[in-house]
Amino acid sequence: MPEELVRLEQRLLRRNEDAAAELRRRFRAAGILTVNLMSSPGAGKTTVLERTLASIAPEPAAVVVGDLATENDARRLRRHSPWVRQVTTGTVCHLEAAMVAAVLEGWDLERLHYLFIENVGNLVCPASFDLGEAVRVVLFAVTEGEDKPEKYPPIVHRADLVVLTKCDLLPYLGFDLERFRASVHSVNPAVPILPLSARTGDGLGAWLAWLRSRRAALAVPSS
Amino acid sequence: MPEELVRLEQRLLRRNEDAAAELRRRFRAAGILTVNLMSSPGAGKTTVLERTLASIAPEPAAVVVGDLATENDARRLRRHSPWVRQVTTGTVCHLEAAMVAAVLEGWDLERLHYLFIENVGNLVCPASFDLGEAVRVVLFAVTEGEDKPEKYPPIVHRADLVVLTKCDLLPYLGFDLERFRASVHSVNPAVPILPLSARTGDGLGAWLAWLRSRRAALAVPSS
Repeated sequence: MPEELVRLEQRLLRRNEDAAAELRRRFRAAGILTVNLMSSPGAGKTTVLERTLASIAPEPAAVVVGDLATENDARRLRRHSPWVRQVTTGTVCHLEAAMVAAVLEGWDLERLHYLFIENVGNLVCPASFDLGEAVRVVLFAVTEGEDKPEKYPPIVHRADLVVLTKCDLLPYLGFDLERFRASVHSVNPAVPILPLSARTGDGLGAWLAWLRSRRAALAVPSS
Repeated sequence: MPEELVRLEQRLLRRNEDAAAELRRRFRAAGILTVNLMSSPGAGKTTVLERTLASIAPEPAAVVVGDLATENDARRLRRHSPWVRQVTTGTVCHLEAAMVAAVLEGWDLERLHYLFIENVGNLVCPASFDLGEAVRVVLFAVTEGEDKPEKYPPIVHRADLVVLTKCDLLPYLGFDLERFRASVHSVNPAVPILPLSARTGDGLGAWLAWLRSRRAALAVPSS
C-alpha cells in the first residue's frame, strides 16, 4: 500500500478512536451495554435482534442499524422498539463512531439499558472501526461453512462472543461444528461460541443471559 | 469523507483502472473469458467453481482466488485444475488488478479458455475495482434473504449475471423468489438471474451454457 495512504488511514483511524472514546464515556455514564454486531450480509443479525428486542422487553433497548441503502432493517426492528435509527452509508463499507454519535441526537441515553449497533454486513472493514461499544459480537451462519473464522481473522481476533446462527438448518447441511470451533479458536482461543436459532428460539436464553451478565459487569468498577 | 481522502482514492482507482485495462488487453489477445466472481463470505463461490471446473474439463480453465488469509480455497480447487493460484490480501477487503497481474506470472495465457477470479468475500469493496474481467458475476445464497441486492446496490448495478446459490435449501426456508427478482431488478433491470444448486447440479447446465456463449462472443469484434 502506498505510504501516503497508510499515513492517511492511520490519521482517520485515530480520529475514529477519539470519537469512539467519547461515545464509550457517554454509554458508561448512562449505564448502557453497547453491543457491536458484525457479520456477513445475510447471516441473520436483524432476525437475531428482532427476537432479542421481543424477549428483553420491557427492558428498554435501542438499535442503530447500518446499511449501504434502504431502511428495510429499521422498519423490521421498529415493530419491537421505539428506539431504532437507520444509518445509510451510501458506498461506505462500515460504520464509524461519528455516524453513530450523529444518530444518537435527541435520545435520552439514561433511559436505555441496551444499545445494539448492527454494523454493515461485511466481515472485513468493520473490524477496524471502534464504535465505543462495550462488547463486540461476531455472527456466522451455519450456511457459510466452517472455515470463515480463519479466513477473516481480524474481525474474530477482537470478538467477545461468536454467535453461530441458523442452527435450525444444521440437519440439511454437512456442517461440522467441531471444525467450526477449531477455526474460531485458531484465531481467538478464549472466545465463547454460542449456537443459536432465531427461528426456533434455541440458544436464545443463553444469549440473553450473556447480555445480562455483561450489563451487570458494567456496574463493577474495573480495577 | 475528507477531501484529501477522496482525492487519494480517486488516484488509486485510476491507477487500478490502468492496470485493469492492460490485463483486459492481454486476456482478449489470448482469447480468454475472464470472470470476476463476487459475493458475501460463504455464498458458495468456491463450491460453484469446483463444479464448474469439473464440468468444463477438458477445456483448460484457471482460477485466481482471493482471501484475507489461508490457502483453503486454492487447495480445494487444485483437485480440479492445475492452474490455481491464491492471493492472500492480509487486511485488504478486495482484489486489485495489480494483485491479479502479479500471480499470472509464468502462465501461458494462450493455452487457457477461461480464467475465474474468485474475489474476497465482500459485497461492498470489490465493486469498485476492475480486474480486467470480461464479465462480472455476483452470487447471492438463498440463505441470505431476498433483500440483499437492494441493500448492496453498487455491486449489483454493474453485474452481467446474478447467480442465486444453494437453491437445494429452498424447501427449508421461507424464501420468496419473486421478491428476490424484484430486488435485483430494482437496481439492475436487465441483468439475468440464474438459480443454481452446486450440490444437486440443478442449473449447472444453464451456467455452463452462459459461460460458453460469453466466450463465443469474445471472438466477435465489438463494433
